[in-house]
Amino acid sequence: MEKAESLRIEAVILSPPSLQDNTADAERLIAGLKEILKTEDDIRIDIGLLQQLPDTLRQYDFNIRCTLLKDNDRWLVIGIQKADDAEPAAGLAVDLGTSRIALRLLNLTDGRILAESGLDNPQLTIGPDILTRIHFTESVNGLKTLNDLILTGLNHTIADLCRSVDMEPESIYLMALAGNTAMTHFFLGLDPRWMIREPYIPAVNRPGLLKAADIGMKLNPAARVFVFPNIGSYFGGDLIAGIYYAELHRASDTAVLVDVGTNAEVVLGDENWLMACAGAAGPALESGVTKMGMMAAPGVVDKIAIDPQTREFRLHTIEDQTPLGICGSGVIDLAAQLYEAGMIDIRGKLVPTACGHRLTEIDGIPHLIVVPAHQSASGTDLTISQADLDSLIRSKAAMYTILETLTLSVGIELRSLSTFYVAGTFGSFIDPRSAITIGMLPDLPLACYQPLGNSSLNGAALLLTSGDRFSEIDCIRDRITYLELNVNQDFMNRFSAAKFIPHTNAGLFPSVKT
Amino acid sequence: MEKAESLRIEAVILSPPSLQDNTADAERLIAGLKEILKTEDDIRIDIGLLQQLPDTLRQYDFNIRCTLLKDNDRWLVIGIQKADDAEPAAGLAVDLGTSRIALRLLNLTDGRILAESGLDNPQLTIGPDILTRIHFTESVNGLKTLNDLILTGLNHTIADLCRSVDMEPESIYLMALAGNTAMTHFFLGLDPRWMIREPYIPAVNRPGLLKAADIGMKLNPAARVFVFPNIGSYFGGDLIAGIYYAELHRASDTAVLVDVGTNAEVVLGDENWLMACAGAAGPALESGVTKMGMMAAPGVVDKIAIDPQTREFRLHTIEDQTPLGICGSGVIDLAAQLYEAGMIDIRGKLVPTACGHRLTEIDGIPHLIVVPAHQSASGTDLTISQADLDSLIRSKAAMYTILETLTLSVGIELRSLSTFYVAGTFGSFIDPRSAITIGMLPDLPLACYQPLGNSSLNGAALLLTSGDRFSEIDCIRDRITYLELNVNQDFMNRFSAAKFIPHTNAGLFPSVKT
Repeated sequence: MEKAESLRIEAVILSPPSLQDNTADAERLIAGLKEILKTEDDIRIDIGLLQQLPDTLRQYDFNIRCTLLKDNDRWLVIGIQKADDAEPAAGLAVDLGTSRIALRLLNLTDGRILAESGLDNPQLTIGPDILTRIHFTESVNGLKTLNDLILTGLNHTIADLCRSVDMEPESIYLMALAGNTAMTHFFLGLDPRWMIREPYIPAVNRPGLLKAADIGMKLNPAARVFVFPNIGSYFGGDLIAGIYYAELHRASDTAVLVDVGTNAEVVLGDENWLMACAGAAGPALESGVTKMGMMAAPGVVDKIAIDPQTREFRLHTIEDQTPLGICGSGVIDLAAQLYEAGMIDIRGKLVPTACGHRLTEIDGIPHLIVVPAHQSASGTDLTISQADLDSLIRSKAAMYTILETLTLSVGIELRSLSTFYVAGTFGSFIDPRSAITIGMLPDLPLACYQPLGNSSLNGAALLLTSGDRFSEIDCIRDRITYLELNVNQDFMNRFSAAKFIPHTNAGLFPSVKT
Repeated sequence: MEKAESLRIEAVILSPPSLQDNTADAERLIAGLKEILKTEDDIRIDIGLLQQLPDTLRQYDFNIRCTLLKDNDRWLVIGIQKADDAEPAAGLAVDLGTSRIALRLLNLTDGRILAESGLDNPQLTIGPDILTRIHFTESVNGLKTLNDLILTGLNHTIADLCRSVDMEPESIYLMALAGNTAMTHFFLGLDPRWMIREPYIPAVNRPGLLKAADIGMKLNPAARVFVFPNIGSYFGGDLIAGIYYAELHRASDTAVLVDVGTNAEVVLGDENWLMACAGAAGPALESGVTKMGMMAAPGVVDKIAIDPQTREFRLHTIEDQTPLGICGSGVIDLAAQLYEAGMIDIRGKLVPTACGHRLTEIDGIPHLIVVPAHQSASGTDLTISQADLDSLIRSKAAMYTILETLTLSVGIELRSLSTFYVAGTFGSFIDPRSAITIGMLPDLPLACYQPLGNSSLNGAALLLTSGDRFSEIDCIRDRITYLELNVNQDFMNRFSAAKFIPHTNAGLFPSVKT
């Protein structure tokens, strides 16, 4: 079934009306567009544009540039500019993360990036995690508050972003937004409370194409917003955007996509099938790695090496500033290096004899001093506690177990995977070597590992610029088989086995010295 | 090509979600509706309804009543109520006239009329006629002012109308509006200025189905408004609604529909073809009949008989009140009776000898006293001037000439028409006998004449209740051949011949005594 492109920007020259040809302005434009698009499909003009159409056409001498969207089998005219308008028809890609929101402004005509920006999710003031926020929606005006926070934050950032390139938000005709299912619900003002109660039902799986003005986005009055669909409460549009960006659904060899963000989400598949898994074991990762790890920022330790002989620490901080914390990828490096230096054992426990003067105790819990007070930006010791390490072990075990469970379910060996995409907020910064050392990721050749950056944002941007299809996104969604994690004895056995460094079965990690 | 009905109200019982069936609420409802409607068409849920859907479904125990609209090949869910909600899903029909606006509220389920109301067009404060108002749109904020007047007037009247039957405007899910092309433009905030400049181009021919909230109508937040299409600047949606109501497009014998309102509009045709004509001669009628005639109201003279012997006047007033004016149908009666009593001649000129004491002169112009001061409500003479009569003669000549031109153009004789529908604000009150006597309408058997009442309002209401098709309206529009009145010598000759009572060719009016 041939499908036309979703977005078109077309120059249209209409013959001016005459007594012999007195079709109305709207129908004149529609007839012209049908000819250019070679279509008999319904073409509609947004009411806001229609109201100005007579003036617009005459002001530009019936010589215009139209921005059109294809929504299923109907075309929508969402922008009419002067044929040679210097102001581009702009698009906006948004990754709506639980902690961080990323925006990319681009020229819809040529795909050129105009500007990028980001902001902390303004809902952090309500609660750091999704669960807290969903519970908050059950208070008076709770959902409205959360929805307002996100809209106000987005609209302000968009206005700033546009100002930075001397543009108006009115020049944005299409926005593509990818986020997890809960964030998508907050954004659209959809009641999320049934997502956290058995049987865990979202309000909607495919929000589709919406009018920006209808959902409180201040863009062009006729602009539309495409919201990536979800598979369910635990598998959101951010992952669908990632699959779309990685082209997992077009891969000839089976590959895997892992999103190591505030949740553990894995997709396995190729051009013939897609299988996904997420969730139940996620909280271990969430409360583990991210509680301890900071967002990447100047002064944050992102790489660590420990001399196995002298046990001397060499730290790298972002922008080489005085250390003030450690980010997620730094924590994984640290654990791998501690293990290789014998400072933690295969259970992740600190080894007092090896840690020596770096070992201290706070509130009765052993801590390892990563950066002593006199070297740190805060003037206090930067430490990692035994509890943090235990949590990391559970997280890495959860990730590996999910990977193992998913591959087992389709009878594929982890080691047979050709490509291993790593996506997500800090996933891209993970050193695969370190992640393999602690047994978080399987022991594949390093060349198999491909960081995707912010694959959610990249997927949203790709949709805007590739001339690609909304329906392709829907197809990806429909092709995914979602594997509910059944936390049974088998799963627990695998999880227990993965709670060692690198694994109880060292044969699975031949490259790791034990 | 089979088409489904446009409006459906369906009871839907959904199986509640379970761990085995954890489709989202929206997709659950859509699947249920697809089964009921037996369709694979796209079904979309309005974003406002979607935001409340999780609560709505659970509050009503997954047992609901849905109001759906078919917009081309896409279904829209525009209302979700409790399955046994006592509040009906209501519809609103509106005839948006230049002078008067009529509203009818009805139950969409059974078509029952709930209430009716009307208001003077609030734009009368800007100007009585369309031309003045279009010129006004060229002043600063002119279009916005006109648009606000109409929206405020409609929204207030709707609120009152709903209150009168103990309902909320939120219970209105669908509105159908028919008006002339200019009024439709004012209503939608569309720039009308090119309608009055050669080549007379409206902004749009088919406004189609719009979201009420997008155009400022305060109904249910998900409600839609269907605006009847026009053929051009001079042939509006009110006429299309009239054709639809009269079922002219389904008639086996050729019939004619005449709208005698503020313009002269004629449609001729049957199930095979439709031919329409309007306009250029319209202003004669407009400045003629309506300037002199009042709106029907208590005390207004609507019927007049003059004793041919005694020349005594017998008047009928609405609700038998003391006379305070004369309405359009009264003016036509008056002219017919004056002619038969020999008080005006075949050119419509007052005959002094026959008028006697009823003749007076104001500002140098002869006037006939219809109601002397001592009998009138105002205490002053109610008169009709020679200028008014001249204007009426031009109006009736224009109407007849347009009818003649249209029938001539298709080679049909006026006398061969089987049915003659008379529509429009005061057209329905015209006594066909009087209209034939003055030569305004052709000399057909009286049984051929069928008043349609407010056919624009009736057509809009029919669309809401007949379970009929939006596409049928579009088909009517597309089947009409619009005859541009070519005011050439032939036309002027016919017009001149029609400027006599009943006509220079008395043979065309055998029933009229000359």
